[in-house]
Amino acid sequence: MNGAQALITALVDNGVRVCFANPGTSEMHFVAALDTVPEMRGVLTLFEGVATGAADGYARISGDPAAVLLHLGPGLGNGLANLHNARRAVVPVVVVVGDHATYHKKYDAPLESDIDSVAGTVSGWVRRSLSVADVAADAGEAIATARAKRHISTLILPADVSWDEGATPLESAVVHLDPPEVDLGQAEAALQSGESTVIMVGGDATGAAGLSAAVRLAQACGARVLCETFPTRLERGAGLPAVERLAYFAEAAVAQLAGARHLVLAGAPHPVSFFAYPGKASDLVPEGCAVHTLAGPVGAAAAIEVLADRIAPSEIAATAEPARPALPHGPLTAATSADVIGALLPERAIVVDESNTSGVLLPQATAGAPAHDWLTLTGGAIGFALPVSVGAAIAAPDRPVLCLESDGSAMYTISALWTQARERLDITTVVYANRAYDILRIELQRVGAEAAGSRPGPKAESLLDLTSPTLDFVRIAKGMGVPARRVGTAEELADALQWAFDETGPHLIEAVMPSMVG
Amino acid sequence: MNGAQALITALVDNGVRVCFANPGTSEMHFVAALDTVPEMRGVLTLFEGVATGAADGYARISGDPAAVLLHLGPGLGNGLANLHNARRAVVPVVVVVGDHATYHKKYDAPLESDIDSVAGTVSGWVRRSLSVADVAADAGEAIATARAKRHISTLILPADVSWDEGATPLESAVVHLDPPEVDLGQAEAALQSGESTVIMVGGDATGAAGLSAAVRLAQACGARVLCETFPTRLERGAGLPAVERLAYFAEAAVAQLAGARHLVLAGAPHPVSFFAYPGKASDLVPEGCAVHTLAGPVGAAAAIEVLADRIAPSEIAATAEPARPALPHGPLTAATSADVIGALLPERAIVVDESNTSGVLLPQATAGAPAHDWLTLTGGAIGFALPVSVGAAIAAPDRPVLCLESDGSAMYTISALWTQARERLDITTVVYANRAYDILRIELQRVGAEAAGSRPGPKAESLLDLTSPTLDFVRIAKGMGVPARRVGTAEELADALQWAFDETGPHLIEAVMPSMVG
Repeated sequence: MNGAQALITALVDNGVRVCFANPGTSEMHFVAALDTVPEMRGVLTLFEGVATGAADGYARISGDPAAVLLHLGPGLGNGLANLHNARRAVVPVVVVVGDHATYHKKYDAPLESDIDSVAGTVSGWVRRSLSVADVAADAGEAIATARAKRHISTLILPADVSWDEGATPLESAVVHLDPPEVDLGQAEAALQSGESTVIMVGGDATGAAGLSAAVRLAQACGARVLCETFPTRLERGAGLPAVERLAYFAEAAVAQLAGARHLVLAGAPHPVSFFAYPGKASDLVPEGCAVHTLAGPVGAAAAIEVLADRIAPSEIAATAEPARPALPHGPLTAATSADVIGALLPERAIVVDESNTSGVLLPQATAGAPAHDWLTLTGGAIGFALPVSVGAAIAAPDRPVLCLESDGSAMYTISALWTQARERLDITTVVYANRAYDILRIELQRVGAEAAGSRPGPKAESLLDLTSPTLDFVRIAKGMGVPARRVGTAEELADALQWAFDETGPHLIEAVMPSMVG
Repeated sequence: MNGAQALITALVDNGVRVCFANPGTSEMHFVAALDTVPEMRGVLTLFEGVATGAADGYARISGDPAAVLLHLGPGLGNGLANLHNARRAVVPVVVVVGDHATYHKKYDAPLESDIDSVAGTVSGWVRRSLSVADVAADAGEAIATARAKRHISTLILPADVSWDEGATPLESAVVHLDPPEVDLGQAEAALQSGESTVIMVGGDATGAAGLSAAVRLAQACGARVLCETFPTRLERGAGLPAVERLAYFAEAAVAQLAGARHLVLAGAPHPVSFFAYPGKASDLVPEGCAVHTLAGPVGAAAAIEVLADRIAPSEIAATAEPARPALPHGPLTAATSADVIGALLPERAIVVDESNTSGVLLPQATAGAPAHDWLTLTGGAIGFALPVSVGAAIAAPDRPVLCLESDGSAMYTISALWTQARERLDITTVVYANRAYDILRIELQRVGAEAAGSRPGPKAESLLDLTSPTLDFVRIAKGMGVPARRVGTAEELADALQWAFDETGPHLIEAVMPSMVG
């Protein structure tokens, strides 16, 4: 057994059954070994950022790591932005980066680069296997720590370690970890203080169990519940507790937190503004509000359930009533497009949301739709929704995936459409085409780079503008094998969504939208 | 004057007049400041790898750095692969990475990451400006060292340093550097030894001056000249010295170097195989051959000219005769497609070559075409040709750019087509569509992952295959505003090239090719 076979065997023996790959020469033994291990599914992507985003989506839905196969330092670089998002999503991923043979590195061949330094910026665990005898054990540790700590484990696999014979497989790997730190006492005291308290859920507490517990506590203690701004996977919709998210714009977030004397963090990070703005505070916690960390992102659901069972044992969490907006008429706007989606969202949908400015009204419009999962841009690195949809669809082949994408963001990882087509994934992508980096038009004013109300200069405006030429997403999608339509009215969007939901396989809808800034 | 204005002023005052940009919120002051400095041209790209590749192409043709504007760590990650290629091309680039405000970093906001570590892997100079008073001087040093050492300088610009007032501009920056190390003595002795000697040119010696000097020396001393495998910019064609490149496949390179007793490196690195292969040597220098480094990549042309003037003062370098292949007929193959290009290559063309397996016969077919520049994949990170073409066309707006791209490689940075259309660049892109990662099919056998002659397993084959669905580059190009045609015969390719060369602006030709492996 060579190193590559031992690695793939260790992966499948430890429950890693999918590998999102964009291989090169140094990974050829890994590629060849796939045919010797029937349990491993290889999924080809045409760009590494699709592979890493897919692994993020897979982990968000399955709870388990997928493997990613990348080619040396440049391959890791191309995958880095979506690994950044995965790190912020606190999900397990096992990254395998093929490298030059150990004895070849000293020659500084053209593809030689410092893989370890780059990997270290996103990984909770990094190791370079230096001998075929170590590969299986290294892989086992990579998987076990990724699963236990919900981080990215990066295993750097030199080509000779991959092709050398003499590996022994490892049947299963376990890593003993101390249980996550939980501080029930402070949170309990805050909730029972009678003072204004906000419970902020995040991490693994944004599933039904954690949300229910938070809402029970809030009902019993007169507290409020907020969800972190960008949850990894928020369970919501009819029959589930309804929880408002902390706003992206700091001004709105400050208003949501106003008056709180206690903030209990149940898996959510300390609330800070996404960016700094001149003359505005970065820390969003109101003055005089005490912050109590109940638990970090891993173990938050368990901690808040313990607390709810202690403080509010007989409380039953209120849930959202089934309710859908009526199908609207007329031109597409943020309001009409959100209502169409709220009216038609399929049962058990997985929504991957990178709608940015165009999607501001989606939360309200979908609050009473059938129960669904909402996946958000945890790390702020755009280009996440198309790839994450790939992984989500592979993790849950029986569920419809609705990918809400923006025109600007779509172009970072557009080749994900090809993988959607190749794997015949049941993904409906809506590209909100407002022909601009609209969020940046807003941010340009918010950072004070342009006086409020004044127009930016022509060069600045040009760098935020996506016209001349207009991107034709229907042609681009068809060029990658995905059926596509363009819509400009609510009626056309509704028709197109029905068409996409009714047929299996991927579809793309280019929804031509007005700019929010104009 | 704020920090952003001081930075842009320092850039233009020091000759940096183009900025390839993919900005985000933390770069909004830089974007706004563009309108206050008329000499700076901002070029929008839809993906950071396009911006970094464009800066590489710009530097290869102009000899001077462009600026690149990237958004935090994920933006740098997306740009990393083409920065890797630029590093290997030994060209100057000034990268500006916007970062969170200095006081905001401690909050670990979603986009926070370790920019410095990633930047260090590709940069010869990295600095974080920590005060508005430092920005102009830091920028000056970034530019001066980039230009002098022909490396990537990365300036990390916190948002508050960008927006703070109180900067003073810096009018010009110079950095004193010791002249490059040159060792004429060893090379001179080798050339005059009467023993079999190979002069290998690389770095800045692959322009007309360096090549002429190498050929004069070879003629006078009975030596041979080879060019490094992947030159940054090789001047060639009718009227210029003709120099064979060292082969990519190690077996062929070994044959080229066989019998040499001396190898004189004039700007080229010590020849090593691109990848390691089981049981084969990485070092390609024959046993018993002494290696003499005349000069590194910077200063190699000057060094070899000094040597040629000393040893062969009256020698006149032989040059390639004007000669073009006849226009061929019939289906497109490696041979017919190369002959069509050789027959029609325009005067003063810049050829950006990522044709990979499909382009193996191009060197012979274009050897006698009108003088042109040939730009190659210096760092091995695919996805370079479309972006590098953007930068080359902006550096030389009066010259036609022929981008020879492969279907697999094209998909990493495909959105470069949109920037080509927006800037109305005179670029003709030929996408060789063999519907496979053909080079990997060959490498799969060469690394011994599959026995010679045996077929790979279905899973391995699937990961190297680009059918199902077939990529339709005509639709994709039109979707980004670039007129496009598909061709399957030599006659159609000739017609399409004439169409593309005759009209200004970008064009794409999808050339459907057979696989080399079958």
